[in-house]
Amino acid sequence: MKKIIALFLLNSIVGFAQNPDEKQLAAIYKSALTESKCYNWLDHLSNVVGSRLSGSEGAQKAVAYTKLQMESSEAFDKVYLQEVMVPKWVRGEKEIGYFLDGKKKTAVPVCALGGSIATPKAGITAEIIEVQSLEELKALGTDKIKGKIIFFNRPMEASKIETFHSYFEAGDQRRAGAKEASKYGAVGAIVRSLTLRLDDFPHTGWMGYGDIPESQYIPAAAISTNGAELLSKTLKNNPKLLFHFKQSCRKEADVLSYNVVGEIKGSEHPEKVMVVGGHLDSWDLADGSHDDGAGCVQSMEVANIFKNIGFKPKNTLRVVLFMNEENGGRGGQKYQELALKNNENHIFAMESDSGGFAPRGFSLQSDAVNFKKITAWKNLFEPYYVHVFSEGHAGSDIEPLTSSKIVKAGLLPDPQRYFDYHHAQNDTFDAVNKRELELGAATMTSLIYLIDTYGIE
Amino acid sequence: MKKIIALFLLNSIVGFAQNPDEKQLAAIYKSALTESKCYNWLDHLSNVVGSRLSGSEGAQKAVAYTKLQMESSEAFDKVYLQEVMVPKWVRGEKEIGYFLDGKKKTAVPVCALGGSIATPKAGITAEIIEVQSLEELKALGTDKIKGKIIFFNRPMEASKIETFHSYFEAGDQRRAGAKEASKYGAVGAIVRSLTLRLDDFPHTGWMGYGDIPESQYIPAAAISTNGAELLSKTLKNNPKLLFHFKQSCRKEADVLSYNVVGEIKGSEHPEKVMVVGGHLDSWDLADGSHDDGAGCVQSMEVANIFKNIGFKPKNTLRVVLFMNEENGGRGGQKYQELALKNNENHIFAMESDSGGFAPRGFSLQSDAVNFKKITAWKNLFEPYYVHVFSEGHAGSDIEPLTSSKIVKAGLLPDPQRYFDYHHAQNDTFDAVNKRELELGAATMTSLIYLIDTYGIE
Repeated sequence: MKKIIALFLLNSIVGFAQNPDEKQLAAIYKSALTESKCYNWLDHLSNVVGSRLSGSEGAQKAVAYTKLQMESSEAFDKVYLQEVMVPKWVRGEKEIGYFLDGKKKTAVPVCALGGSIATPKAGITAEIIEVQSLEELKALGTDKIKGKIIFFNRPMEASKIETFHSYFEAGDQRRAGAKEASKYGAVGAIVRSLTLRLDDFPHTGWMGYGDIPESQYIPAAAISTNGAELLSKTLKNNPKLLFHFKQSCRKEADVLSYNVVGEIKGSEHPEKVMVVGGHLDSWDLADGSHDDGAGCVQSMEVANIFKNIGFKPKNTLRVVLFMNEENGGRGGQKYQELALKNNENHIFAMESDSGGFAPRGFSLQSDAVNFKKITAWKNLFEPYYVHVFSEGHAGSDIEPLTSSKIVKAGLLPDPQRYFDYHHAQNDTFDAVNKRELELGAATMTSLIYLIDTYGIE
Repeated sequence: MKKIIALFLLNSIVGFAQNPDEKQLAAIYKSALTESKCYNWLDHLSNVVGSRLSGSEGAQKAVAYTKLQMESSEAFDKVYLQEVMVPKWVRGEKEIGYFLDGKKKTAVPVCALGGSIATPKAGITAEIIEVQSLEELKALGTDKIKGKIIFFNRPMEASKIETFHSYFEAGDQRRAGAKEASKYGAVGAIVRSLTLRLDDFPHTGWMGYGDIPESQYIPAAAISTNGAELLSKTLKNNPKLLFHFKQSCRKEADVLSYNVVGEIKGSEHPEKVMVVGGHLDSWDLADGSHDDGAGCVQSMEVANIFKNIGFKPKNTLRVVLFMNEENGGRGGQKYQELALKNNENHIFAMESDSGGFAPRGFSLQSDAVNFKKITAWKNLFEPYYVHVFSEGHAGSDIEPLTSSKIVKAGLLPDPQRYFDYHHAQNDTFDAVNKRELELGAATMTSLIYLIDTYGIE
């Protein structure tokens, strides 16, 4: 590209704004792109604090760091912590996985799924059966499954634009694979990583045993997609090959942790509360820069932008960094518990927990009247390449939150790259683009500005 | 992100299509995301062929490779080359740059701008004056400039969403800085790299001396943004510091090279031609995966998708990989020259030369009637997160092309990350996301399908 002369491109120049809302959005985006702190905050959270699994030292450091940053930002009237007891799961030693095809031993990248039990110290070695779904287990039955490892290998559906749909659909294998396989006497579960890439990173994530007796728990691990492809191919030639994996993860006693809250008191309606947040915990394999360091620093940036442009919200604004989204959801539950206890009136809640990519729009949980009201603002966002206003899930941490009347919104960043990094060791700071992160923060701030200005019906 | 339940998201599931166009676009996107070749082609072009500056061995290998791939793809009726003489500029030895602040020597990353002359063998050492614009030169005048190096340090404007605007505006320093500085007796030009990031990569790119006498040519180099910041800061304390740079680049005799053309003969109107292309040449510092390997393989993919979904265009479709976009534009000129000579009737031309990022829309050069006709198709693209249909420059290679009536379109990928890589050593294969590349190809194919089906007015 030598000399693109895109001078005629419309809809794209900050500063062409006319009406007060257009001007305010222009100021918000300009502030985000020229004087934001979110990228530096994320740098620290990722590269100094590091991974932040609930109950870990990293999680505690993250609480202290973000609280201090919010306090020193001068953007808040008060900053405080909400105590919350969180589960503590520890990975233990690096996992080992390989298969034996006759005498040939082939190592494959595996990692324990969060919440899984350990294998016996020597690991588990058994025949392994590939299935594509939970339903297939039933068809195979106990006779064929007993004593074996089950290999769940249904890939995420590549043809969908909405990668989160593909993730959710294929995710039943990770969430419930071990539990279901155990019912037929399986001794372990190996689950294809939930990513659309073919690579060598195993992707962890939450799994549960539901209400099966603890004696029937079996260990579960993720295998990288390249590992899964190789294993599947080799199995076709030798269905009797032996799979081995070894992991020493364990559950420890619950730990006292915190949601971090920064509050700007509303100038006109202090009793009406708007919440914006992300989750401060991450998985343990990486920095969790996209999941969800990005959402935390973007939420903090909302208050910073308001300070920079001199905007004082009429309603109370709370920036909430929730603890324990990944393996328990305790922070979100605690926030709701305290809101109920204090008789709070929440009118709006927003979450950013889909990565720090270029913002495309919002996923809204709203009644029809407010949905229509919000979508009428679409044209204000178009100059910033933000077009999608759809009905859908807004966020796990704000899911428990109830109020007499509340609208919820989830930031929708571009969804194509998220699962390249999600819950894997490459979810690191260098995978986040500064401008994309900042544009997400500006997009969040803009909707909050509009909600604050025009209220909900 | 543990358990996003985005099941209610609308507008996003391939397969919900109803009318024939919706179905055809669904088939196109599905083919791109599940059976495309473009990512593998790009892998080869980047990692086996490598950089492809006009006249280089890499450029010739790229011609041979893409011709062979098009021939063996069975997607074309014929594949051929168009001879074109291209300029050859050679970088020579790795450049050296440093400044001397008293006795302290600080190295900074520099690279010669494409088209620049060399420094004397020993390099140039001189005082250096920072300016923010070409206008500032005039104000300084010959007295202050003579014998000095001029340091053009105006950054790209971060507040604009359209990074291509910022690039074009700040780019006058690179394109014309040396030429203008020479008029006031400067001995060299150092230009801040055209990127919005702060990093250590110097970004090359075309510069020209216009019509000043060859005896007045002065060498020009880019400096990394971090280097520029450091130099600027140090200059404020010591305006007399000495800057040194050394480069051995040279211009050689023109070389015979080629545009690569693959053609599908139109089933109803073979005399009406649609063109889709990118440029096969790149700068020499990296693989040129985004600029413009991506555009080449996406253009090739258009024909591959048509083959896969069994679509035969009514009009003739040509995939054209243009040579020498970066430093001459000879391939685009040659294509037009031959089109004129052969009395061809082009109805449509599309270029992809803005990187292999998630597609956001098109930049259209069209009369009002066809602009309206094309924008009426917007709703067909929305399920694929493609929303922007704006008037603007379509592409450098198709710029020379004229016809009695022609519509031109440039693919608009998300513009935030492009200049992180543009013309620098990090424009490599790993910076391209497979799905984003594929979605771009599908978006291009979809518009070509619609143009082919409904024609232009």
